[in-house]
Amino acid sequence: MTTYTVADYLLDRLAEAGVRHLFGVPGDFTLDFLDHVERHPVVEWVGCANELGAGYAADGYGRLHGLGALSTTFGVGELSAISAVAGSYAEHVPVVHVVGAPTTAVQAAGRASHHSLGDGDFGHFARMTAEVTAAQEVLSATDAPAQIDRLLAEVRHRRLPGYLLIPADVGGAPVEPPSSPLPDPDVVTDPVVLARFRDAVAARLEASDTVAVLADILVSRLGAEDALHGLLGHGLAHASLLWGRRVVDESASGYLGSYLGAASAPAVRTGIEGADLLVLAGVQFTDLTTGFFSQRIDAARTVEIRGEHARVGDDDYCPLAMRDALDAVSAEVAVRSDRLRAHDSPSTPTPPRTPDADGPLSQRALWHEVAAFLREGDTVLADQGTSFYGMAGERLPHGVVFGGQPLWAAIGFTLPAILGAALARPERRPVLLIGDGAAQLTAAELGTLVRHDVPAVIVVVDNAGYTVERVIHGLHEEYNDIAAWDWTTLLAAMDPRGATTGVRVDTVEDLRRALTDARTSSSLTLIQAVVPQDDVPPVLADLAAAAAAANHRA
Amino acid sequence: MTTYTVADYLLDRLAEAGVRHLFGVPGDFTLDFLDHVERHPVVEWVGCANELGAGYAADGYGRLHGLGALSTTFGVGELSAISAVAGSYAEHVPVVHVVGAPTTAVQAAGRASHHSLGDGDFGHFARMTAEVTAAQEVLSATDAPAQIDRLLAEVRHRRLPGYLLIPADVGGAPVEPPSSPLPDPDVVTDPVVLARFRDAVAARLEASDTVAVLADILVSRLGAEDALHGLLGHGLAHASLLWGRRVVDESASGYLGSYLGAASAPAVRTGIEGADLLVLAGVQFTDLTTGFFSQRIDAARTVEIRGEHARVGDDDYCPLAMRDALDAVSAEVAVRSDRLRAHDSPSTPTPPRTPDADGPLSQRALWHEVAAFLREGDTVLADQGTSFYGMAGERLPHGVVFGGQPLWAAIGFTLPAILGAALARPERRPVLLIGDGAAQLTAAELGTLVRHDVPAVIVVVDNAGYTVERVIHGLHEEYNDIAAWDWTTLLAAMDPRGATTGVRVDTVEDLRRALTDARTSSSLTLIQAVVPQDDVPPVLADLAAAAAAANHRA
Repeated sequence: MTTYTVADYLLDRLAEAGVRHLFGVPGDFTLDFLDHVERHPVVEWVGCANELGAGYAADGYGRLHGLGALSTTFGVGELSAISAVAGSYAEHVPVVHVVGAPTTAVQAAGRASHHSLGDGDFGHFARMTAEVTAAQEVLSATDAPAQIDRLLAEVRHRRLPGYLLIPADVGGAPVEPPSSPLPDPDVVTDPVVLARFRDAVAARLEASDTVAVLADILVSRLGAEDALHGLLGHGLAHASLLWGRRVVDESASGYLGSYLGAASAPAVRTGIEGADLLVLAGVQFTDLTTGFFSQRIDAARTVEIRGEHARVGDDDYCPLAMRDALDAVSAEVAVRSDRLRAHDSPSTPTPPRTPDADGPLSQRALWHEVAAFLREGDTVLADQGTSFYGMAGERLPHGVVFGGQPLWAAIGFTLPAILGAALARPERRPVLLIGDGAAQLTAAELGTLVRHDVPAVIVVVDNAGYTVERVIHGLHEEYNDIAAWDWTTLLAAMDPRGATTGVRVDTVEDLRRALTDARTSSSLTLIQAVVPQDDVPPVLADLAAAAAAANHRA
Repeated sequence: MTTYTVADYLLDRLAEAGVRHLFGVPGDFTLDFLDHVERHPVVEWVGCANELGAGYAADGYGRLHGLGALSTTFGVGELSAISAVAGSYAEHVPVVHVVGAPTTAVQAAGRASHHSLGDGDFGHFARMTAEVTAAQEVLSATDAPAQIDRLLAEVRHRRLPGYLLIPADVGGAPVEPPSSPLPDPDVVTDPVVLARFRDAVAARLEASDTVAVLADILVSRLGAEDALHGLLGHGLAHASLLWGRRVVDESASGYLGSYLGAASAPAVRTGIEGADLLVLAGVQFTDLTTGFFSQRIDAARTVEIRGEHARVGDDDYCPLAMRDALDAVSAEVAVRSDRLRAHDSPSTPTPPRTPDADGPLSQRALWHEVAAFLREGDTVLADQGTSFYGMAGERLPHGVVFGGQPLWAAIGFTLPAILGAALARPERRPVLLIGDGAAQLTAAELGTLVRHDVPAVIVVVDNAGYTVERVIHGLHEEYNDIAAWDWTTLLAAMDPRGATTGVRVDTVEDLRRALTDARTSSSLTLIQAVVPQDDVPPVLADLAAAAAAANHRA
């Protein structure tokens, strides 16, 4: 019988926590570990073109699936992925980064090993990663199971990435299999705290004529979406920040629109900022989701629900799980729902579709058409630029999961992330919206999407450069230009089997046809959508002006 | 008149230190700085597809030109390049990494700015980079000139990377232009130390019948190549490590071959390890250049010359510049050169060219043909894998600069690095040798090579995977497979003007023709060279066995 090893233990625990795919790039310090992956009944290896791509894919997987996992080699590999790991930290995505290292003996000897700095110090990279991970463990042959369990508990509880360094001799060390399940990662509510919180909410509701809810991404990360939907089901006026679009149903009654501080549509701003009582559900205000902190939220009229606690005015309630807090608010709203229901929907309707179908494509028409194309069950990732902000003006249909990365804001992130998201939720159709400049950062993972037969619909916005940067500063400066690529040929280069479709469009009519064809196709479609270079979605123009101002304020 | 600013000061100092090209990716915190770059008379902006590529390009530039420079944005940008910066550190390449940051005010307010972790701590990334750089400065409006000069002095003196963080409000702050030149970065020799060293060397030479020289990369980094060539010009037996091939002339009299410890050709091993006196010139032994530390060097019979000091037996001579030390040895050898000259060249001749020209291409034939193609004035970068080790068995013609990255050993490094090397030394023909798995990590910079009309000759070894990993472990495991790409189509996708040539070859005859055509072409040629998947250069097979053994030693 084969010996049960540290590597097997780790893989079994990852599988127990829901991981079905491990993204990464092999390296000589990881190869023994990867043998165990190949043999594992649940965890499947997904080799990526490079480590940054693998890191973004693991993040995309974690966003859709609750936990992502990434494997790289020491030094060169882990540092190439570290920006992705930092992004997971910024955006509250739990990802386990498993790094293969030189053997304990090589490290102890302090010699100039490849993939090290050659100075005998093998601790540089673990110290670096400690800045952008919630937990770190250098596995030892004797203590590995406890170390793995401790790290997974922290990563799952805090919804943040963690780092596991496995020296090449430790992965194969014999250990006992797990004898008890992983602990529940969620916050345990104190019932006394919950009762006090519920009373405080009830008192506030009694004193309020209008109640609104503003929701954001942490609702999703903490698995509290059902509880939020329960609350919103009472017909309360509500909005989300752009970061948290996925936590609300934009076709629901009471939905006002996206809240962006001063850049919000007037009805949204009034509905949120003017409510007698505002429930903040998992909200983190960031510069790019608030028009550079232009929100006007009166803490005295706010119930704020976060990961481990809630606040009502000046009073803090802790420990209190988000789900329990939302359920408590929901129960108190239920008994007053006739009075508190949003009366008529003041939401801004989506403007009608572009009438001139054979005219040249514009940003506005592009996002209208994409929004009209979306269906329940789609996963949409929009890259941080014209795609994310272009879609900000569009209402999403019911059942669409929409995501972006507005805090870490790494352009190019979404292309590998859609790979992870697609493998995490294969029953959903993956849709990727990305600019050409951004896509150049991570284009190599197109080949990985093709290799894994991911039926993504990819819209590459071809406007010859970094439009998001142009509108902030340097509209026609050379540094915002990029190398000219033919994206349909690029797809062909990465698809020698010819199993995919690439099409270039520059009119509304052609875009519509390409999207319609993509909907009926079971394989990947890449649409290179040509728009004028200076054409900018209105939300992005506003935001860029604020960004430029922030950079010029001393 | 335009105000002279911190940005101008930095650019003028970089130009003074020899920087003509600044590699990077724009970001909103760097755009004001880039305006100054656009206007600068000397420093030219080279926008890359992504930050890792820009970092590798800056490193390649620094290798050929003495100093490289890189510009990225805060967080997402700098961390995406940090593996390249770490590689510059490991491989002793001076590169200045200029990072644009949020304004001093935004940082002081501690708000959730994009490209930060959202936790209000703007120091994470500077702390991370301190692990892999020799100097770091966060520029302030009042002290920037002194900070810039201090950093450049350290970077140039130590031949290691440095990190300059420029808050968006600081780059435009007014300062006075430099009033004195940058200090000489080289070690200043103490003449008394030098005289003592020379006496000690003379005594050793008197007692020795055979003298050999083993040279390595630090000779190049410290600009001591002329001094080394002066010494070797006396006809001494000599070799280099694979890291330092560029510091010797492999067609010179007395050249033995590459020294790889136990993996050396017998004549090389005997000539180096058996000499009565061995001069080590700028040598750093690493696992991959010594067959995992199998060198047998007797310190008692060694004169070791390093960056700031030299050793003769147990005696240390410091401060002593490498150039001065080499000149001293040279002068003492000169008066004994008849006696010490290597008698007949015991070097291993390069095996004859493959006779069967229309047979299928093998690794052995591939590297023979590439070696036969090389000419004086070529810059050759060989990626860490079959390319670097395949070329280990070939003798290089006079005047070829050959490089790789055997310590940091980041696969994919050379593709962007050849961009930097080509711009650093435009009079030299750039030749890139890289495997398909490696090239997928950094392929996007092919577009940058095309955009800048770099006439590179690129050989992509197509064997469907990570061969270097296969031979270490997992010959037919799925994790060593890669996505199938058509490289000539990929080049076409990145070259809409059709200015380049892409050709796929699988016979010796076709390879020869493609190389001949590339030699007469003034534009970029990519040769996709198909070889059998399990075919491995002999040097790599030996080394891989040693690597696998090292990973299985507890």
